Amino acid sequence: MKVAVVMGSISDMPVMQDAIDMLKEFGIETHVDIVSAHRTPEKLVDFSTNAHNNGISVIIAGAGGAAHLPGMVASMSPLPVIGVPVKSSNSIDGWDSVLSILQMPGGVPVATVALNGAKNAGILAAQIVGSHDKAVLDKIIAYKLKLKEAVLKAAEGLQK
Amino acid sequence: MKVAVVMGSISDMPVMQDAIDMLKEFGIETHVDIVSAHRTPEKLVDFSTNAHNNGISVIIAGAGGAAHLPGMVASMSPLPVIGVPVKSSNSIDGWDSVLSILQMPGGVPVATVALNGAKNAGILAAQIVGSHDKAVLDKIIAYKLKLKEAVLKAAEGLQK
Amino acid sequence: MKVAVVMGSISDMPVMQDAIDMLKEFGIETHVDIVSAHRTPEKLVDFSTNAHNNGISVIIAGAGGAAHLPGMVASMSPLPVIGVPVKSSNSIDGWDSVLSILQMPGGVPVATVALNGAKNAGILAAQIVGSHDKAVLDKIIAYKLKLKEAVLKAAEGLQK
Amino acid sequence: MKVAVVMGSISDMPVMQDAIDMLKEFGIETHVDIVSAHRTPEKLVDFSTNAHNNGISVIIAGAGGAAHLPGMVASMSPLPVIGVPVKSSNSIDGWDSVLSILQMPGGVPVATVALNGAKNAGILAAQIVGSHDKAVLDKIIAYKLKLKEAVLKAAEGLQK
Amino acid sequence: MKVAVVMGSISDMPVMQDAIDMLKEFGIETHVDIVSAHRTPEKLVDFSTNAHNNGISVIIAGAGGAAHLPGMVASMSPLPVIGVPVKSSNSIDGWDSVLSILQMPGGVPVATVALNGAKNAGILAAQIVGSHDKAVLDKIIAYKLKLKEAVLKAAEGLQK
Amino acid sequence: MKVAVVMGSISDMPVMQDAIDMLKEFGIETHVDIVSAHRTPEKLVDFSTNAHNNGISVIIAGAGGAAHLPGMVASMSPLPVIGVPVKSSNSIDGWDSVLSILQMPGGVPVATVALNGAKNAGILAAQIVGSHDKAVLDKIIAYKLKLKEAVLKAAEGLQK
Amino acid sequence: MKVAVVMGSISDMPVMQDAIDMLKEFGIETHVDIVSAHRTPEKLVDFSTNAHNNGISVIIAGAGGAAHLPGMVASMSPLPVIGVPVKSSNSIDGWDSVLSILQMPGGVPVATVALNGAKNAGILAAQIVGSHDKAVLDKIIAYKLKLKEAVLKAAEGLQK
Amino acid sequence: MKVAVVMGSISDMPVMQDAIDMLKEFGIETHVDIVSAHRTPEKLVDFSTNAHNNGISVIIAGAGGAAHLPGMVASMSPLPVIGVPVKSSNSIDGWDSVLSILQMPGGVPVATVALNGAKNAGILAAQIVGSHDKAVLDKIIAYKLKLKEAVLKAAEGLQK
Repeated sequence: MKVAVVMGSISDMPVMQDAIDMLKEFGIETHVDIVSAHRTPEKLVDFSTNAHNNGISVIIAGAGGAAHLPGMVASMSPLPVIGVPVKSSNSIDGWDSVLSILQMPGGVPVATVALNGAKNAGILAAQIVGSHDKAVLDKIIAYKLKLKEAVLKAAEGLQK
Repeated sequence: MKVAVVMGSISDMPVMQDAIDMLKEFGIETHVDIVSAHRTPEKLVDFSTNAHNNGISVIIAGAGGAAHLPGMVASMSPLPVIGVPVKSSNSIDGWDSVLSILQMPGGVPVATVALNGAKNAGILAAQIVGSHDKAVLDKIIAYKLKLKEAVLKAAEGLQK
Repeated sequence: MKVAVVMGSISDMPVMQDAIDMLKEFGIETHVDIVSAHRTPEKLVDFSTNAHNNGISVIIAGAGGAAHLPGMVASMSPLPVIGVPVKSSNSIDGWDSVLSILQMPGGVPVATVALNGAKNAGILAAQIVGSHDKAVLDKIIAYKLKLKEAVLKAAEGLQK
Repeated sequence: MKVAVVMGSISDMPVMQDAIDMLKEFGIETHVDIVSAHRTPEKLVDFSTNAHNNGISVIIAGAGGAAHLPGMVASMSPLPVIGVPVKSSNSIDGWDSVLSILQMPGGVPVATVALNGAKNAGILAAQIVGSHDKAVLDKIIAYKLKLKEAVLKAAEGLQK
Repeated sequence: MKVAVVMGSISDMPVMQDAIDMLKEFGIETHVDIVSAHRTPEKLVDFSTNAHNNGISVIIAGAGGAAHLPGMVASMSPLPVIGVPVKSSNSIDGWDSVLSILQMPGGVPVATVALNGAKNAGILAAQIVGSHDKAVLDKIIAYKLKLKEAVLKAAEGLQK
Repeated sequence: MKVAVVMGSISDMPVMQDAIDMLKEFGIETHVDIVSAHRTPEKLVDFSTNAHNNGISVIIAGAGGAAHLPGMVASMSPLPVIGVPVKSSNSIDGWDSVLSILQMPGGVPVATVALNGAKNAGILAAQIVGSHDKAVLDKIIAYKLKLKEAVLKAAEGLQK
Repeated sequence: MKVAVVMGSISDMPVMQDAIDMLKEFGIETHVDIVSAHRTPEKLVDFSTNAHNNGISVIIAGAGGAAHLPGMVASMSPLPVIGVPVKSSNSIDGWDSVLSILQMPGGVPVATVALNGAKNAGILAAQIVGSHDKAVLDKIIAYKLKLKEAVLKAAEGLQK
Repeated sequence: MKVAVVMGSISDMPVMQDAIDMLKEFGIETHVDIVSAHRTPEKLVDFSTNAHNNGISVIIAGAGGAAHLPGMVASMSPLPVIGVPVKSSNSIDGWDSVLSILQMPGGVPVATVALNGAKNAGILAAQIVGSHDKAVLDKIIAYKLKLKEAVLKAAEGLQK
């Protein structure tokens, strides 16, 4: 069981690395690649139509501007696709990538996370794996506990 | 394996029905309930913390305006949570529900779909189930084929 | 020399008809088809990669919501692609289709017109043909004269 | 009579400090804490349901992004809750926190102040105390006089 | 102890009536008036500077478009001022009234509620009174219970 | 004949100086002052109601955030009022000042210029004076000629 | 002394009529015409460059969508130009006309009023005339008095 | 066959240079000039009405703020006009230039590209030339191949 992390350009890597790191933290194998909807459409078709036959069970796709990669992958793969809107330079404050990933037509969902929210994309992919894999589910429960403890500790620090 | 469909108010039902219909089409059992983050916070806590122990594997949550339900469920459940922004009356064109569901902080993802996109929430939940259930995956592949054929037929009709 | 007019869904036809009418007015042959980026990705690839070998010289593509059709056609065709953002139901006031067509990354332009501006897409396609076809150029000059005369006549009517 | 100042994360402290400073200036006792709606939901429930029994009469809650803290506190406390939208990094220009605090559904108000407007939250809390405490009311009248004098002095300086 | 409900124009009455109704439900005396910041500036000054001497302890002010009434009242009164952005005709989708009420400068807070959220303004005013009046506080606790029961009943209805 | 240039805060001076400079260039006498709608409401009333009796014929008012100064001056003065939206810190990208100056209700116009457009406010004031003062009109014609020549010169430079 | 009221299309007349009516109320002569920046550019040049020689002292220009008329008139006339953003069909909620009239570059101001604010454009033109014509100034003072009385009367009606 | 590249101000040059570079790469002759719609309206008329008689077949026009240049050129020339919205200082995040170029009225299209998308404007102009010039079409096909190879190479690098 693998999670694919694809992005439209190597310049999206600094943002998308967070997803890869999160998946590593949950012990989930990843397949990382660059697939540009606009510059390598054949690779897009090949990747998307075959992912579910290549041992991949969830796809994370990140892109900026008029971000078509997540939606196009979703149009050709039966797997759940998580979209990460990346705030690229010359973006109009990120609205373009958010809306072109989120507002998919009926029939072709993309599970959209926050602007530059690759970390959450990684966690969401783990939650999807965890929905039928008790070991991963337990890791997520543990992760949430850790989040809580960090906040409680910060609150404690504040009281002193 | 069940998918929960919860909403903040009975007035969200006309939108959320699409998710229930889609899940029925894929033969997936659903649990439907009204859980208001702002009006029944105890029920919210109870539902969210226990869902994964009650045979539920994916949660769909819909709400309008300052929509806190999806994010609050996600904060207390280790399961994947799909958020449906509902365009309620007095909403500022839907931007409020979209942003208060989508822009979750690091650590607590919500898989957001389009404004009023409950149909896609249903399909996405099915895809999550399908990611480890071959029978459901095949139904999704068949569903996508049906979508394609409808478009091709419409295109044919146009040529005449 | 033909202009292709494609759209993502038959529901875009009422808007896109304006482009077809405009091209007919300029005596330019059209090829009309439904090509859904998200529902018929194979047809999308086939249409886009071959258009320039099938006697087509300009492509008009209309779509709504997270509108990927114009950009995906542009990614696979060397021809000029004109994008028409369609204001579909459940769109967020049209911003989604405008931004997902307009904000294309460097290397893959889409000539975007106004929201629901299919009429202007037809005229623009004619202007592209006219840029190297004197007869069509003259028709455009005549068309602009007609626009002017209509305004002048309305102004005259006002003075009485 | 105490005013509670809570925030979703220690990273909100630089903004929220303004509220604490303002309350100190008006001589009002404060209780400061970190309560994350998404990371410490149990603490959220505990704090919100008991505040009015713990000598607190007004609650100021600040959060960024999909900011659910103010609204969730308001859902569980009968006290007036003042919400401070914090412009966090990766926020979409602050719109997300503004809308997810402001646009609360009927029945559960949050008294929202400007983006990063913690100073005004402190003053507003003092005004609420002052609405039934003559000594605090007089301090507010004096504060407004000071504001006026500062402006008049700046104006005078300009004339020279 | 009275709550004043003022509005910029008689045309705001259908929206502002919700605040008056809510206050009546909580048994709080109201003073209702029309005070236009732009058309009756002298009345604005007179009302604002004297309200706290006339037995008023909270002010609710509603206005649409470039809505200056809440902020101007707040500039001249030491009392807590609740602002209701009204979505008037020719408003730009309500953004104008929201922003011109919410984004007050440091020193002069307005407690802003949702677009057309007069009902919540009434509740918030009652909460402010309740912050030092046990009888009103208990009514608010009872009101919140009623909200919860209505949701639970709707949820029950759904299960049948 | 004088033009008044007022601003809500000394911090608006760097922007508003452009108006003063422009008026000096056209040889028009100016009266510069700080008048805060929110901090010096009495001065606001005094200034606004008397300006037309004090030899002032046009008023330029600049303010940021929930900018009420231009509209409030316009509500009390029969003179033409030019509003300059200032992009202050903590503004939501300037939208707040633009909308709270521009969207005035029927009966009370404010002549709004671009965000931070104090230079144009100065020119507009001069044009208003020039509408009945031939000498100033001629200066404006000369100014426009200078603008043109600067562009033509830059264009020439480009050709070399 | 005349005020010109021009508009881009006869379809703007229902909105622009308010300006004409207001000017008639103030007894100011008007010249009404249709001048389309995009369809009758020669008429635009002719009108704009000569207006100040034809007895016109203020120009009101209304247009919708990518509204270039007010700015283009302002570029060629030394007179004060008032711009009215018209909310046309297919406009993106009026934002297009507002921004393309308001955000003029340094050197070429347009005095912009609210969306569809033709009534205020008429009043503003009268105020410009009144800035040097005592009789018109007195009419404006009287008009403002009438506004105030109407509000006071409505307030009185409310008290009964 | 020449492509004209015009811009409203020399300050647009850093952005517009990308269009010139792209055209050079495709071996297409360019005519570069500064034509300000607002500062040199006569030059605007002269350039626009004559371009098609001066050997120019496509026009690229870039401008910022209330960007009228592309639309005004399009109103007077029968040639295809490509508009480049430039994000100038004091722009409201680029929305002003985008909307005042994109939202042209029926009859006068402008082929709009992304914010600061001059590179794509150059490619689009080349595609228009290529629509009837086999040599240029082949260069575009080659250019797209190069784009693809760069992505594939980056992807390869990632795998190591």
